[in-house]
Amino acid sequence: MSAAPKEMNGAESVVRSLHAAGVDTCFANPGTSEMQFVDALDRTKLMHCVLGLFEGVVTGAADGYARMARKPAVTLLHLAPGFANAAANLHNAKKARVPMVNLVGDHALRHRKYDAPLSADVEGACAPFSDWVKSGEDAGSFARDAMEALRVAKGKPGRIATLVAPADIGWDEGGQMAPELDSEGPAPLDDTKLDEAVKMLEPGGNTAILVGNSVLEDPATLKLLQGIGEKTGATILAPTSSRRTERGQGRAPIPKIPYPINEAIACLAPYDRAILIETLPPVAFFAYPGKPSLLLPEDCAQVTLVGVDGDGQAAVAALADRVGATPGKGVSPALAARPQSGAITLENLGAALANALPEDAIVIDEAVSSGGATFPAGDMAKPNTWLALTGGSIGIGIPLSAGAAIACPDRPVITLQADGSAMYTIQGLWTQAREGSNVTTIILANRSYAILKTELHNVGAQPGQDALDMLNLDRPHLDFVAMAKGMGVPGRRVEDVADLMRAIEDAAKEPGPYLIEAML
Amino acid sequence: MSAAPKEMNGAESVVRSLHAAGVDTCFANPGTSEMQFVDALDRTKLMHCVLGLFEGVVTGAADGYARMARKPAVTLLHLAPGFANAAANLHNAKKARVPMVNLVGDHALRHRKYDAPLSADVEGACAPFSDWVKSGEDAGSFARDAMEALRVAKGKPGRIATLVAPADIGWDEGGQMAPELDSEGPAPLDDTKLDEAVKMLEPGGNTAILVGNSVLEDPATLKLLQGIGEKTGATILAPTSSRRTERGQGRAPIPKIPYPINEAIACLAPYDRAILIETLPPVAFFAYPGKPSLLLPEDCAQVTLVGVDGDGQAAVAALADRVGATPGKGVSPALAARPQSGAITLENLGAALANALPEDAIVIDEAVSSGGATFPAGDMAKPNTWLALTGGSIGIGIPLSAGAAIACPDRPVITLQADGSAMYTIQGLWTQAREGSNVTTIILANRSYAILKTELHNVGAQPGQDALDMLNLDRPHLDFVAMAKGMGVPGRRVEDVADLMRAIEDAAKEPGPYLIEAML
Repeated sequence: MSAAPKEMNGAESVVRSLHAAGVDTCFANPGTSEMQFVDALDRTKLMHCVLGLFEGVVTGAADGYARMARKPAVTLLHLAPGFANAAANLHNAKKARVPMVNLVGDHALRHRKYDAPLSADVEGACAPFSDWVKSGEDAGSFARDAMEALRVAKGKPGRIATLVAPADIGWDEGGQMAPELDSEGPAPLDDTKLDEAVKMLEPGGNTAILVGNSVLEDPATLKLLQGIGEKTGATILAPTSSRRTERGQGRAPIPKIPYPINEAIACLAPYDRAILIETLPPVAFFAYPGKPSLLLPEDCAQVTLVGVDGDGQAAVAALADRVGATPGKGVSPALAARPQSGAITLENLGAALANALPEDAIVIDEAVSSGGATFPAGDMAKPNTWLALTGGSIGIGIPLSAGAAIACPDRPVITLQADGSAMYTIQGLWTQAREGSNVTTIILANRSYAILKTELHNVGAQPGQDALDMLNLDRPHLDFVAMAKGMGVPGRRVEDVADLMRAIEDAAKEPGPYLIEAML
Repeated sequence: MSAAPKEMNGAESVVRSLHAAGVDTCFANPGTSEMQFVDALDRTKLMHCVLGLFEGVVTGAADGYARMARKPAVTLLHLAPGFANAAANLHNAKKARVPMVNLVGDHALRHRKYDAPLSADVEGACAPFSDWVKSGEDAGSFARDAMEALRVAKGKPGRIATLVAPADIGWDEGGQMAPELDSEGPAPLDDTKLDEAVKMLEPGGNTAILVGNSVLEDPATLKLLQGIGEKTGATILAPTSSRRTERGQGRAPIPKIPYPINEAIACLAPYDRAILIETLPPVAFFAYPGKPSLLLPEDCAQVTLVGVDGDGQAAVAALADRVGATPGKGVSPALAARPQSGAITLENLGAALANALPEDAIVIDEAVSSGGATFPAGDMAKPNTWLALTGGSIGIGIPLSAGAAIACPDRPVITLQADGSAMYTIQGLWTQAREGSNVTTIILANRSYAILKTELHNVGAQPGQDALDMLNLDRPHLDFVAMAKGMGVPGRRVEDVADLMRAIEDAAKEPGPYLIEAML
């Protein structure tokens, strides 16, 4: 580590200023236009640099890191195509409202006007997947722009801030340290809305309290919600997918709105009053012929106590105070009996996981069509932190777990990974091996895009062979143990539920990554 | 196969109209919003549907297909994140100016206004990587829009046309067949420019004829260029990377402008006159401190005989006619001696490939830092077709070869694949296995992003450990044979140059894909 020199280039000023403001982890897949950043990171030794062999690994890992570290990492990406490769997991991070700062290298300013092979509209490519985009203008103001990006990223809610970095302003001398800027705090609680919410909790109706984002991250807030429910009869519900939920024995379990459209509608049908806290009105994941887009009944009265820009934990505390509720006891469902030997099925998978998940695990949930079977395990298991796919863009599980493990090196990470989704960012296994992370990836191998078979049925079709060929992952079968081996991750295939549990328990105890291919 | 029914939904009208206009291959990674297309493709059985397990495989394969079939395939992609996953290889295809029609599913029109998990600005995401974008409006006009996309794609030059497909206009009834529309032909040859070009070929200067795109695809045109060179003393040069070049014994070899900046400048330094045919003025791949962006000398006179929208083959014929040139004999460099046993090195790799490449091979060139060693093999080997990475976005080799093999099932495909680049779209091996394609992937394993080490040096840096960690693919080593096995592709690792040659010769004779990890 070295003090900031009097003379430095633009790239070094950005690295040093970000670090001075608390950013100490960089997820990178650099190319030529980022070489001055690679050089600056190398010379300053201020950040932990984590290489991904594909950009979707980089942003998925930065997301997992941010969810667990509660602060942004910086990513290093290469031009418009590199950003595009990163975008699907940025989409997920944007929907999760986590903070992230992206540095996207671009051609030198003077080179932009030519049609070089890698020329493209970088800012245009970044915009749909960022909350804020700016292109750096010169070496002297480059760090100030980076601090503005960080300010935006760390606001409430968290945001994706993308700073385009032309190569020449990175290598030009004249870089200046820039100070951290204050981020916007949460929007204040509105007393009128609090009154409305309190009124909705009076007898005379069925009330749902829909909570999201930071509300689910604090065990004490969840117990307080449980207390409000006990006191008023209201039902507490979480969105279908949440960025981070504290779960497990001794904590207050919060049911979620199901993914399947009919179940989602049925789940919300009973309510004529809804209080929303750090969440948006629930919407169908997709539209379907003859089904509504909005999931709450049309005549359901709604109040948003605080939106996603508010402090949901404070809002819950205020609401509890007004209704005189005290924290619930955090009674979780009883642990299901440990399954004995036999095939792994959607019926015994939840109980198996509930028994095998280690204490204090970070569970990464990209179970997709097996999610209905695996989700209940989180409430029955020992205390754990559950991270889900927030933006619907598959291919997040392996990278998210890599990043979570870097934020929390002392906690075991267990990834519940659908097989089809695993293939989008399978390269992330290498990063787990490079970093020696204690991540156990459980491939839930049903050898198909199983969820799409349901969806095909939902639009009224009966699949023939051509359709099945687009939904099945057979011919040939995927061998995840072999692929993991190819990336330095040991593993084994299990077909028996007792073997699955033993494999999870063994792997979580050992340092370093492991992969279990669980045949469903 | 079935005749178009009187009543059909929007998706079926698009599939049937595209097929009637000659589109018979669909590369797909569908999701829920494309289920009506999956259903329509399934029921009509009009197209060969090829599944990719990641969207970058889909578009890279559609590019390889278009380069070899000389007509567009249609792709099926899923919302903004799915398009983004596809975008890097669309960038390459756009720079190659190949024709492609993308169908990108979106939420139903009525669902767009809600913040569903997968909601994003689809058209905004598509724009930077497409030449044309439109969103379908209703079932009745959907096929007309698809025909407009096809018209644009098949123009001169080829273009990337992206039609956004809201789910409801796919499933709504009222689909109407739409007729094929005439694409724009090439821009006419300008007599004044022809006069200028002829004048540039008169004695009294050093003239370069820079040729690209379709010029390189026709062996007769290449021989005519050789004849023009022999007659006038002009040097014929191709761009650093070209979409398709007919090469090998008995054909006219065309040297290319080197990638390294200093070599590129030196290559073009001798010329004071340049004639451009279906290519743009050559530009440095990247900008570097103190180096020019434009590669031709500042005082070099230039004429664009025809641009990328012109008919370069006709332009060459006209030029030959005016200068009285006849076709050259197509004298290729003599075949280098077959290397005997020993380690595989950049020194013997070219000769090894030249000897081992089978007749009529399609060679996919993503050799990157090994490209200087492998490129000369194409001129010495038996006649072959050489497809290169046109847009600089790595991760094209494996998908491009999958698509080329589908266009030309009777030709052996040999992929020269850098290891770092292979990891971006490694999933394409599965598609090769699914389709039983005769693709031999040669992983050129130097276990680093070797080209970036040079680039780091080019910006003046001396790498330390942190920098090397971002450029090396060690800790752990990648085992490509294991990864290939995991995707149903057999393979072996070779360390001896004689084994490499034998492995190529054996694999090309066998049906189905094979992977050779060549340790450099």
